[in-house]
Amino acid sequence: MSERVITRLLEQREAILERLLTLIRFPSVSTDAAFAEGMRGAREFLLARLRAIGLEDVRLLDAPGGQPAVFGAWTGAGPDKPTIMIYGHYDVQPADPLELWHSPPFEPTIRDGRIYARGASDVKGSTTIAIETVAAFLAVEGGCPVNVKVFLEGEEEVGSPSLPALIEANRDLLAADAMLSADGGGAAGKAPVLNIGCRGIASLQFSLRTASKDAHSGKVGGALRNALHEMARLIATLHDEQGRVMVEGFEAGATPVTNALRMEAASLPLDEAAWYAQFGATPFGDPAYTVRERTTLRPTVEVNGMWGGYTGEGGKTVTPAEAHAKLTMRLVPGQDPAAAQAAVKAHLERHAPKGVALDFQYRPGGTRAYTLGADHPLRAAAAAVLRREKGGEPAVTRLGGTVPITTMFQERLGMDSLMFGLASPDEDAHAPNEFFRLSSLDEGLRLWPLLLAEIGRMRAADFRPR
Amino acid sequence: MSERVITRLLEQREAILERLLTLIRFPSVSTDAAFAEGMRGAREFLLARLRAIGLEDVRLLDAPGGQPAVFGAWTGAGPDKPTIMIYGHYDVQPADPLELWHSPPFEPTIRDGRIYARGASDVKGSTTIAIETVAAFLAVEGGCPVNVKVFLEGEEEVGSPSLPALIEANRDLLAADAMLSADGGGAAGKAPVLNIGCRGIASLQFSLRTASKDAHSGKVGGALRNALHEMARLIATLHDEQGRVMVEGFEAGATPVTNALRMEAASLPLDEAAWYAQFGATPFGDPAYTVRERTTLRPTVEVNGMWGGYTGEGGKTVTPAEAHAKLTMRLVPGQDPAAAQAAVKAHLERHAPKGVALDFQYRPGGTRAYTLGADHPLRAAAAAVLRREKGGEPAVTRLGGTVPITTMFQERLGMDSLMFGLASPDEDAHAPNEFFRLSSLDEGLRLWPLLLAEIGRMRAADFRPR
Repeated sequence: MSERVITRLLEQREAILERLLTLIRFPSVSTDAAFAEGMRGAREFLLARLRAIGLEDVRLLDAPGGQPAVFGAWTGAGPDKPTIMIYGHYDVQPADPLELWHSPPFEPTIRDGRIYARGASDVKGSTTIAIETVAAFLAVEGGCPVNVKVFLEGEEEVGSPSLPALIEANRDLLAADAMLSADGGGAAGKAPVLNIGCRGIASLQFSLRTASKDAHSGKVGGALRNALHEMARLIATLHDEQGRVMVEGFEAGATPVTNALRMEAASLPLDEAAWYAQFGATPFGDPAYTVRERTTLRPTVEVNGMWGGYTGEGGKTVTPAEAHAKLTMRLVPGQDPAAAQAAVKAHLERHAPKGVALDFQYRPGGTRAYTLGADHPLRAAAAAVLRREKGGEPAVTRLGGTVPITTMFQERLGMDSLMFGLASPDEDAHAPNEFFRLSSLDEGLRLWPLLLAEIGRMRAADFRPR
Repeated sequence: MSERVITRLLEQREAILERLLTLIRFPSVSTDAAFAEGMRGAREFLLARLRAIGLEDVRLLDAPGGQPAVFGAWTGAGPDKPTIMIYGHYDVQPADPLELWHSPPFEPTIRDGRIYARGASDVKGSTTIAIETVAAFLAVEGGCPVNVKVFLEGEEEVGSPSLPALIEANRDLLAADAMLSADGGGAAGKAPVLNIGCRGIASLQFSLRTASKDAHSGKVGGALRNALHEMARLIATLHDEQGRVMVEGFEAGATPVTNALRMEAASLPLDEAAWYAQFGATPFGDPAYTVRERTTLRPTVEVNGMWGGYTGEGGKTVTPAEAHAKLTMRLVPGQDPAAAQAAVKAHLERHAPKGVALDFQYRPGGTRAYTLGADHPLRAAAAAVLRREKGGEPAVTRLGGTVPITTMFQERLGMDSLMFGLASPDEDAHAPNEFFRLSSLDEGLRLWPLLLAEIGRMRAADFRPR
């Protein structure tokens, strides 16, 4: 059945590419109100497309102050079949700095088998693959192997501020057995790789004060605390010289790196020398773990910004009274964002000497790490497809970064996710000259039908707690 | 003889005040080319005044690219009498932020016995006292007790960039036995206080690099060095938790704080609790020394600015590859600025782990600490005047800050300096609503004639190495 669908997709390939290029031409930059017209254009294009391919209930879902999401459903597979939410997003990052682009960011240009344009890789390419897969099933077979709910977000690139409210307002409409994401993943390429999770995140900003005002470093130097010295001492207590986090209680609940996890991490080999070489850096980090383990299975505390005193041209002989730092923590499964935040805060308070006042600015929320369970049907289905298509057991990997949508859908809708996007990490998403490989488009138009068909072999009951 | 001069000055007090107000009205901001007219006006006023009071050789001294100094001499005391350079400056700090002034900064306004205006305290008030003292001697006595060279700088507030060249070009003209400065000092007020020196200064800026580019803290966190963590670790090695400098070799040559120096420092009592209270801070610093000793007799290493990573609104999940710090060191007698700089540089290099690259941006120069020797005739003369006028032995103190001109004249012209200005530390020099006390004007018009007369009792030979 899926081979007929794949044949249809290959026949339609030029039309599909043309639709992808049309979608890319809408400059749908969600962070900048100047691009409201581009956002609207992309939405209307997608609404029209979802209607044209035969989805039901096609409409915009909105929450106050947010960017509407595009929704459409097809429930003809019946209640015994799983209902799969297909996730993508139509908004893109800003294209700045424009002068670094070799061709205009919103005029997609094909060179050397690549589509160069903002949003091509992140994530209009994979979103198009997902929609066209559903379209082909409906056109060729008159139906999909599973029930489908297409959910195309409009504010992924700005941190999904209104998504929680939108989900709460549409709980029934969005109900599904699992989520298949066109964003994230790395399904493209020769080696079979299954991306089964990501680290979580929490953040903490604080200011440190040693006096009520800055003072002249000549007049007071030697007798008045310098906020920058104190900030340095405090930040230096967070790690040992090998970068191990030294914060008591920070790892509470964290899943230990078992032999099984070590084997999982080793399933996708990493050339560590080449990894460091790409950053012009030397090896670093806890020697008890490999680089893959350090960046996916171990939690971190990172200072993203630190500043205080005079930072302009030349010099100023000031003893600063105030210093600032922005921190984020990457969390592994089992860690609670609020508890991790609290542990770091308590550590800083414990290590701040008398005479050093700390003022914390929490940023709300935080996201737990996400893992797709080893026995989840989506994982079995994806593994089966990859095994057949690419040969060999798929390597299992996780993102070191955070995809909040996975955790959000799990926590709010009880729905697990598989990231099955076709973007590759080298495609300069978020940077000038973003591109998407035409070969990945072709590969996606084969892998997605196979995956939907594979899931279609399962029953809805397979996805529900026994 | 000096009493007749003082009487004359008191009689002329209204005219003197009027001349001071005229001088203040010229907005002579040396750092801003928009005030060139104000600089020119102040210079011409001073040139005219020096000519009017009978000085010889009145002219501008200039060096390429700099602000001219105003010069005038009177050498009628004869070769057996000392030749004293009288130093002042006619340039002022910018008046910004203007909105915080209660009256316009360049329209001097007298309220509650104070002249409110930019430059009133720093240092047109004391400069006027010095000039008018010479004027009164010439008018009443037909001559001064000593030979006089008046040198009024035009770029003190911008760090005297062309002064070394100006000195080298005018070595013979500027030759004198000693320098009496209207800038610095603190001669005003009830207690007799002699300011006999200041700390020196050296500076060092450096950047720290851990990778060739910033990276995504999710992707690399745990395995890539974070430049901010490394900066914090490095800065934290500079001091112990009590603020003691931990840099090997930094104190090379530094004069130890002997019992004699401790007694000197104790001669001007300091209410330490009140001192910390003014900064809203708690006690800090090497407990082996008093606050006065820490801030005048002990060297420091201070971080004046430190920054890196993302410092804007909100957050950015970056692992920064680069961090920066600006340092200054305050030096005590015996320390060499270049050696102190080199010691700090070597310390940082020694403590930077492999994989952390440091790039130093030296700022040129540096200034040694300055001390007016205990047996210097200027010190004896000033002490005698203060003893007679205020009663009791003068307390001896030093500035914690740096007055580069004292060191520069000593190193380049072999000339020692006494700072005998009438400004008080609470007069908001460099800040909005700068003021100068009318009582300090009156006091200066008595102390300066007495001091010149006292020096006039000495012979030129007293000032020359035996």
